[in-house]
Amino acid sequence: MCIRIIASSFAVPPQVETSEEVALRLGRSTDWVHERTGVHTRHVAGTLKDPAILAAAAARPVVERHGEPDLLLYAGAIPRQMLPETSLFVHRELGLSGTPSFSVNSVCLSFLTALKTSEALIGSGDFRRILICCAELASRGRNFEEPESAALLGDGAAAVMVEATDDRGAGFDAYRMQTWSEGVELTGVRGGGTWRPPDAPDVTPADHLFHMDGEALLRLTVPHLRRFLDDFLREAGIAASDVDLVVPHQPSGPGLRLLTRWGFPEDRVVNIIADYGNCVAASMPMALAVADTEGRIKRGDRILFLGTAAGVSIGAGLFRW
Amino acid sequence: MCIRIIASSFAVPPQVETSEEVALRLGRSTDWVHERTGVHTRHVAGTLKDPAILAAAAARPVVERHGEPDLLLYAGAIPRQMLPETSLFVHRELGLSGTPSFSVNSVCLSFLTALKTSEALIGSGDFRRILICCAELASRGRNFEEPESAALLGDGAAAVMVEATDDRGAGFDAYRMQTWSEGVELTGVRGGGTWRPPDAPDVTPADHLFHMDGEALLRLTVPHLRRFLDDFLREAGIAASDVDLVVPHQPSGPGLRLLTRWGFPEDRVVNIIADYGNCVAASMPMALAVADTEGRIKRGDRILFLGTAAGVSIGAGLFRW
Repeated sequence: MCIRIIASSFAVPPQVETSEEVALRLGRSTDWVHERTGVHTRHVAGTLKDPAILAAAAARPVVERHGEPDLLLYAGAIPRQMLPETSLFVHRELGLSGTPSFSVNSVCLSFLTALKTSEALIGSGDFRRILICCAELASRGRNFEEPESAALLGDGAAAVMVEATDDRGAGFDAYRMQTWSEGVELTGVRGGGTWRPPDAPDVTPADHLFHMDGEALLRLTVPHLRRFLDDFLREAGIAASDVDLVVPHQPSGPGLRLLTRWGFPEDRVVNIIADYGNCVAASMPMALAVADTEGRIKRGDRILFLGTAAGVSIGAGLFRW
Repeated sequence: MCIRIIASSFAVPPQVETSEEVALRLGRSTDWVHERTGVHTRHVAGTLKDPAILAAAAARPVVERHGEPDLLLYAGAIPRQMLPETSLFVHRELGLSGTPSFSVNSVCLSFLTALKTSEALIGSGDFRRILICCAELASRGRNFEEPESAALLGDGAAAVMVEATDDRGAGFDAYRMQTWSEGVELTGVRGGGTWRPPDAPDVTPADHLFHMDGEALLRLTVPHLRRFLDDFLREAGIAASDVDLVVPHQPSGPGLRLLTRWGFPEDRVVNIIADYGNCVAASMPMALAVADTEGRIKRGDRILFLGTAAGVSIGAGLFRW
């Protein structure tokens, strides 16, 4: 059984922070923020504390138009609370009853993982229609002592409905993910769980904020990414120029520019970093929903989902629309 | 493509707490603990703070005997830290390199969800061998002001290796999950995430501990569970007496006794609650590994995985060994 994405949608909190404002909080120049991150504005949660409300805002128009799914799959990196997982709160916001609900988490690759999992679960015959949704309130964990990550992060949510189709050409033509966990300390929010709970004597306030060692991360990731991408395209039997649209995670402006340097024409790479920042797991489905809304995707197009994630992991999916 | 579980294993931290000891901390009698929870002893983390170390202890013998998997799937409810997800730390403990890694989370049903997801992903042709593992250090979140949940919880880990097989009879004959999110506030650890972060002014220490409204949970869950089970068995075309072994989540002694009242012979229900307590998502795979270790499962047996989870969710899978 093949799958098709029949609808996509995204939502952001109303409050916008410009890079001028962020630069002032960081004691850096606006140009520094623009150059290092590519971010000009990002939406921030403000008083919103519940990612489920934002995820439901993205999902609601999809459900109203296409009906309830057979399964709700949440694909986020930063939870609403320690336990239970966030899909259940989205389920409640959407007023679902009886519909099964769970989460997948591969940090910034969560959407791609959820899309692949959806194809597999629909292929198993137990589901026909799956709602994938995700929201990240990453701005709430910004550490303004770490200018680069604090300048990058933004908040947002997205939802897509995936459906079984008889069109045997639709869905994944190729999929690959790899993880090199020697990078697992390079990005994270160390606190909150069993390892450094809030009441542990050695826990600092910074343990509950986002930490990223950007330079070490690049050193580890870029060589893997280059090789991964070459292998992936070769095994999929296509060239970079054959891809109709690249829907990447939005790590940063410089990160996205690597893709054009590696042969993907700039006008075929969805780039929303300037407007929304890095929204963690929400970035990839937001990029998809923005491109879809702008009419940049048509039936039969070959979409390349591509991203890196804390871990580090790299994932790619060649998807026939 | 069908699947087979080719190995299972479990691990517990060495420190044991008896119900006599727990009863003293709770100001209740030992009989009260035994009657309400069915737990006589539980293993507790002690100084162990990292669930990945315990998960790797369960997984290591499986990997040493059967080789590395194509995918590491973590199936836990309580994370090591807020970000990134716990599979990555298990990946590092196991010394994997390049093997993809992610988490699924449906709270106490995470193992069943991971097993179903594994079957679907193996069916998609992209993976042949998946290592599912899980560890819970639930004792670290016990709230001794809430005697019932504090007396229930224990720590443990389990791992299983799932492999593609040509035997078309092996794997799931039937699978079903449902979620009713009106119960989402009844069980949880409210703190830690974006909703009640450690630095929020209205957060209390209890927000970082386990909360369960046992009576409300039973009122909501039992009628759903009864109907769910009747529907599931009818659709699967079998009677309770046709099931060779029930591998349930281990919610509590009284919870497990419902199964015998509903027609499953007591000697066919794996019951490890007295020795290990409720180990959240680790309970179901630990029960499987214990039964497997004791030689209670043979090729061709019909295993019923069955459980409830915070949410509330109910899940069942009829699995041909």
